[in-house]
Amino acid sequence: MIDPDIPAPADLQLRQRLAKRFRQLTDPAFVLTEPGELAPYECDGLSAYRRRPLIVVLPATVTEVQAIVRVCRDLGVPVIARGAGTGLSGGALPREDAVLLSLARFNQILDLDVSNCRARVQPGVRNLAISEAARPFGLYYAPDPSSQIACSIGGNVAENAGGVHCLKYGLTTHNLLALTVVTIDGELITIGGGGYDAPGYDLLALMTGSEGMLGIVVEVTVKLLPIPERAQVALASFDDIAQAGNAVAAVIAAGIIPAGLEMMDNPAIRAAEDFAHAGYPTDAAAILLCEVDGSNAEVSEDIKRVREVLLAAGATEVHTARDDTERALFWAGRKSAFPAVGRLSPDYYCMDGTIPRRHLAKVLKDIDRLSDQYGLAVANVFHAGDGNLHPLILFDANKPGELEKAEAFGGRILELSVAVGGTITGEHGVGMEKINQMCLQFPPETLGVFHTIKTVFDPHGLLNPGKAIPTLNRCAEFGAMRVHAGALPFPELERF
Amino acid sequence: MIDPDIPAPADLQLRQRLAKRFRQLTDPAFVLTEPGELAPYECDGLSAYRRRPLIVVLPATVTEVQAIVRVCRDLGVPVIARGAGTGLSGGALPREDAVLLSLARFNQILDLDVSNCRARVQPGVRNLAISEAARPFGLYYAPDPSSQIACSIGGNVAENAGGVHCLKYGLTTHNLLALTVVTIDGELITIGGGGYDAPGYDLLALMTGSEGMLGIVVEVTVKLLPIPERAQVALASFDDIAQAGNAVAAVIAAGIIPAGLEMMDNPAIRAAEDFAHAGYPTDAAAILLCEVDGSNAEVSEDIKRVREVLLAAGATEVHTARDDTERALFWAGRKSAFPAVGRLSPDYYCMDGTIPRRHLAKVLKDIDRLSDQYGLAVANVFHAGDGNLHPLILFDANKPGELEKAEAFGGRILELSVAVGGTITGEHGVGMEKINQMCLQFPPETLGVFHTIKTVFDPHGLLNPGKAIPTLNRCAEFGAMRVHAGALPFPELERF
Repeated sequence: MIDPDIPAPADLQLRQRLAKRFRQLTDPAFVLTEPGELAPYECDGLSAYRRRPLIVVLPATVTEVQAIVRVCRDLGVPVIARGAGTGLSGGALPREDAVLLSLARFNQILDLDVSNCRARVQPGVRNLAISEAARPFGLYYAPDPSSQIACSIGGNVAENAGGVHCLKYGLTTHNLLALTVVTIDGELITIGGGGYDAPGYDLLALMTGSEGMLGIVVEVTVKLLPIPERAQVALASFDDIAQAGNAVAAVIAAGIIPAGLEMMDNPAIRAAEDFAHAGYPTDAAAILLCEVDGSNAEVSEDIKRVREVLLAAGATEVHTARDDTERALFWAGRKSAFPAVGRLSPDYYCMDGTIPRRHLAKVLKDIDRLSDQYGLAVANVFHAGDGNLHPLILFDANKPGELEKAEAFGGRILELSVAVGGTITGEHGVGMEKINQMCLQFPPETLGVFHTIKTVFDPHGLLNPGKAIPTLNRCAEFGAMRVHAGALPFPELERF
Repeated sequence: MIDPDIPAPADLQLRQRLAKRFRQLTDPAFVLTEPGELAPYECDGLSAYRRRPLIVVLPATVTEVQAIVRVCRDLGVPVIARGAGTGLSGGALPREDAVLLSLARFNQILDLDVSNCRARVQPGVRNLAISEAARPFGLYYAPDPSSQIACSIGGNVAENAGGVHCLKYGLTTHNLLALTVVTIDGELITIGGGGYDAPGYDLLALMTGSEGMLGIVVEVTVKLLPIPERAQVALASFDDIAQAGNAVAAVIAAGIIPAGLEMMDNPAIRAAEDFAHAGYPTDAAAILLCEVDGSNAEVSEDIKRVREVLLAAGATEVHTARDDTERALFWAGRKSAFPAVGRLSPDYYCMDGTIPRRHLAKVLKDIDRLSDQYGLAVANVFHAGDGNLHPLILFDANKPGELEKAEAFGGRILELSVAVGGTITGEHGVGMEKINQMCLQFPPETLGVFHTIKTVFDPHGLLNPGKAIPTLNRCAEFGAMRVHAGALPFPELERF
């Protein structure tokens, strides 16, 4: 049993041995061992964390994946699956003692079943490619992470990815029908199947979001939805960020489920406007973008009500996009917010936590206070409808100590989320980034249940070790073990 | 470790011992040991299966549940939780060697959080009572089992209950935010919490539908949805049941997600019409009831399109309810179909399987053939939009051998569902009724994973033993172990 917290140094002899075996199993051109070849795989989208993989292999078929995994199991070598490498929590961070198995060559859409509204695809297929293939049939795949041009559906499954439209249409886990998975024993298993209900325990939900720690996904069947006839967006300006937070609750309470409900604070507005010229009010304390979709008639009616509710909730102005071009422009500002904020500062650190909507105003104030305390500016861009925060902490990695300060600040934001009854992730997963905060989110007993479940699927701890679920040792070292007097073995969230 | 397949005979000494302990822990009036008191608890909604519990206890508080469960654990006595006892698969069937723990006294709505659209309730609260309490605020709880007047939310969680509206709004599992559960060790645990995403493995989904085998639910937090402004229903008649089946696919493919899409065949139509005078065409081979809901404008538009699609798909007539009274009447026919069919025959056996929609016509034909073969009539009433079949097998339990024939026929229908890539349950759970068919649904390796997961939560197998997940011994005896040449440890469902 390897210690998941301690990667061993690269064993060059083992690398050669694996390379030899892998080159018998797949096209030798896709077995990478040279430093120059390995470098691109040193990190995923969380580039502040880097490690060099022992070896990278890119198999082309399910049979090859099975054979490669069996070699890893037989030699006791950990194996880390990687999709497009766009993850933001370091879930695909390599280890010096582990094989990195890329599923980039699994890029085929295997079946579009229009009459049953589903697509069967390989895990390396890009999120957006599914919707593009389904578009001629009037269908699309709903979850839309910001990285959807690049991110792969396999990675979406591993991290239970979200996106702007998840308020109405759910996360990845709500849009899946079946998975085919290679187990650590190299067996091929299919879970789910798309029935109305499934007997037995819900293994499909268990596998989704498990960050490659229970098996390697080699095929994904997703639900497709009809493309809404029309979408319309309202841009509301607020003088006060707390009012904007309360307006979010008012929209939901009015019985409208927007397709998207996003908030940006003043620093984010100014950065985005400067970058995308979206027509945002740069003097507003906050804006809300509220999109509704559906049939023509429904959209006309809903957008009228959204406007009324937002004005009643204190919006100084509500501007409805006059046409699809302006609508696209409003969203272009939001979608470019991350790179736009990136121009304000050499580096930024994107956090991802979720809080009950009613605590939005309070938590934003606390973040502001922490910003002063750490001396680092923050821009806030988030999925307000879900209470999913994405504070962007601005720093300069070239200034000694700033990265560490940004990490500490980010950790405090996550702790704040837990304290108000929220969670340390909204859609980016835990990966390597938030593993210490898992010690706050869950008491040791729950972590124990997680470890035992992992053992059911991966008895020797070879699948993506050290991610997502901290060892109790790690929590003890982090010094933040969550222990209750009442010894509640699961998180006793604040009552909402 | 008890053998879950073999209940021991009632141990009268143990009964007295438990009674004494329980009467110290809860109001003695709610500890039942006399035959007359125990009789009402001998079965749940699947009344063909009966067993007398060792003892029945109805605690009033979470602390009492914890104490009672600890007594059971210390004495190694199995414990079976029971909600309202309306389940149709025998999930709450007692055992002669087990405590039956009723949650009937947990009937309080603890909190209605209107701004966050959620309700925190005790498990004994009736499904419909939640919607009734939420109605003044314009909200409701979406899953609507036919038994919603009587069934409890705790039982809904245990069986992952569905209903007519689940096509659009999902099963119980899609409408839950958090559960508080008493473990077999008497610990209180909370899982979920209502965040956008949750770190760690998805224990909330794992617990939902686990039929009381992983823990005893003592508090449930559900999502509430805004009550749609309007609903409208279309009644379509077909000369041919296969055409009706294809019309279902056509509606879905047209991009409409109906709030309900139900099918009835001719025997069901005639029985329901005779009973409820709903205005059904008694000469039609099949009818579809297609309901749409939403805003006024959306409903007007959708119902027009539904009408067009149904006519294009071969409906001989499409009748849109002229007002809410007629709409209620159309549904009254559907909702009374079970009791109506009950008048055709002394007894009926309601099956529950799910198949891919495209196999509807084929499977209905096969059921017809089996009906001839077994000499038992069938009426079909089902959630067509989901492919969720509810064939009602008519029989007379007073005729020797008829119950056994009905059970065998029912078993064949479930096997048929599995053979076309479906599942043995749609919304009623597995319980005791379908435990043998689990041997067909899943290969031994998957059943092994299920058992191991159970062991994580319940190491001594004391929680509702013998339900839902068959032992491998049982499968061997049933003679229908699903073993693949390739030894796939999970169900290799037919490709859709």
